[in-house]
Amino acid sequence: MEQIHPLGQIAGGANGRYVPVRRLPVPATVSVRMQALIARPLDPAFNTVPSSTEAWKARIEAANRNVLASLPALRERLGVTVEPTALGGVSAFLVTPKAVQQHRKDVVLLHLHGGVRVFNGGEAGTREAILMAGLAGFRVISVDYRMPPDFPFPAAPDDALAAYRALLETADARRIGLFGSSAGGSLVYVTLLRARAEGLPMPGAIATGSPTVDLSGAGDSLATHAGIDNVLGTHEGFVAATVQLYAAGRDPRDPLLSPAYGAVEGFPPAILTSGTRDLYLSNTVRMHRRLRDAGVQAELQLWEGQSHVQYMADPEAPETREYHDEVARFLDHHLTV
Amino acid sequence: MEQIHPLGQIAGGANGRYVPVRRLPVPATVSVRMQALIARPLDPAFNTVPSSTEAWKARIEAANRNVLASLPALRERLGVTVEPTALGGVSAFLVTPKAVQQHRKDVVLLHLHGGVRVFNGGEAGTREAILMAGLAGFRVISVDYRMPPDFPFPAAPDDALAAYRALLETADARRIGLFGSSAGGSLVYVTLLRARAEGLPMPGAIATGSPTVDLSGAGDSLATHAGIDNVLGTHEGFVAATVQLYAAGRDPRDPLLSPAYGAVEGFPPAILTSGTRDLYLSNTVRMHRRLRDAGVQAELQLWEGQSHVQYMADPEAPETREYHDEVARFLDHHLTV
Repeated sequence: MEQIHPLGQIAGGANGRYVPVRRLPVPATVSVRMQALIARPLDPAFNTVPSSTEAWKARIEAANRNVLASLPALRERLGVTVEPTALGGVSAFLVTPKAVQQHRKDVVLLHLHGGVRVFNGGEAGTREAILMAGLAGFRVISVDYRMPPDFPFPAAPDDALAAYRALLETADARRIGLFGSSAGGSLVYVTLLRARAEGLPMPGAIATGSPTVDLSGAGDSLATHAGIDNVLGTHEGFVAATVQLYAAGRDPRDPLLSPAYGAVEGFPPAILTSGTRDLYLSNTVRMHRRLRDAGVQAELQLWEGQSHVQYMADPEAPETREYHDEVARFLDHHLTV
Repeated sequence: MEQIHPLGQIAGGANGRYVPVRRLPVPATVSVRMQALIARPLDPAFNTVPSSTEAWKARIEAANRNVLASLPALRERLGVTVEPTALGGVSAFLVTPKAVQQHRKDVVLLHLHGGVRVFNGGEAGTREAILMAGLAGFRVISVDYRMPPDFPFPAAPDDALAAYRALLETADARRIGLFGSSAGGSLVYVTLLRARAEGLPMPGAIATGSPTVDLSGAGDSLATHAGIDNVLGTHEGFVAATVQLYAAGRDPRDPLLSPAYGAVEGFPPAILTSGTRDLYLSNTVRMHRRLRDAGVQAELQLWEGQSHVQYMADPEAPETREYHDEVARFLDHHLTV
């Protein structure tokens, strides 16, 4: 067995280094509400991998039910209404704030929800859109794209593209913002790659929260932040199983699965967000650098102590307000000139 | 003894969580030159704390000698000249690139070097300034501020302020950029606090790399990235000892020691940089948020896999070039309009 070195005397070399056991205190440098989220244990059931299609569906339904149960109170508190609709033949939801400011009257955001490529189908996918409508005040159309186990790649990007194409018939591309977090953030970039390939205009701006733009397992934070992120825990296990389910035999380095490997020249202005404990901090940072190297206006906003998309977990946390303020400022700047 | 939980089943609660031993591979998502830096072991001697003033001086002199030995070749390769000078009675160095672009002819950068509050006295402090002159093409004046053990706080901020005040006599504040990394980055903010208190104009822009703006030990990454950062290792030990030496009995939460606690309203545009393995990533992120909350134009740039100011360790790494390109673009935008 290899020797484990005490902290401060860590071996190096081509095989990497060992980091010993350590205790992570709950940081005092975040709000009290965020401290409560950071103190949460990792769900011990999270990393079990369903062993059959039925088990996947049961796991997914249970998770979606939990989200759904929270939505009526959230909509009411934020004064947001949600109506089912369809866009380009794809199921979607109109998510509307109590009031839309005059300068945003022609602006619409297209939302691609997150959920590790399997969760948040149906109305459960509207949660992030409700926050955006309620806390940032934008009109949102949330796309209920198809997902595994029944619909692996390319169903999700097909649906996202169909919805975007349909939206272009009624809205000025320069007034459209695309946004999403995690798998939804990655799908935003995939939709841009597909749209460009089909000669469609780019939207006016995008906002992607911790976009999982590399499904191959690359990215340093997948190692450094494993077990530190208390939302996802590790890439290995459940998350990697959803990649297999989604990719269905394709090379995960295909840019339409992992847009970190795509050509991003000409992409619209982008705001990327993450947290210092995020398992996918590296994905976010790598995508940010890639965009900037390609000459895209791209800005990065990070939050102290937060794990994967934790800025969305508690609508009453000051950090959640800050996140929406930053995104609203960015989108206003680029969509309402 | 408390139970250590396996990865993926980590206990939570007010006492925090445990993260077990893990191996960190060298990431393939950075350049080959950066991989060589990331693969380096932590220097096992780094975390020994000198036991006397003489031992501190010997440690500091040895470190400075190492840096000094590398400077002639660096200056020659980058075509940079360095001349001793004085500014406001403070020892300093004029660091001049081979050629200065016409649009920058009135621009000058004031450099406050890093070095954990004790290292890089004398000409050793010019290394970062040589990189900035050579790779970004700016004229730089590097301040050789006084440091412990002979000169604890407030000698360093006194010298930095005296140099800035003197520079204002010959340069337009709007054409002055302040920059520095680590302790030097923090000293940039301290200098702004002092300058504002004395009614001096703000410089046109600042660039701070992983500024150690909180010497109290707060900041989540001090826990999450302990032992992951292979430049500093941990805050506890040598680094904390330099804080004691520097603060000399003052409360480390004094904003002139830890500008993270200062009022930053009215500060000039700022670019902040860090890496995903940086022990002080949280300091950088917290300062960035604080600046933005105060309405300051502040942008954040991160690099994949890098420990504390590792983007300065190898002048030939592509990431080092990218860092200087980003800083040059930002300073040009704000200093040469």
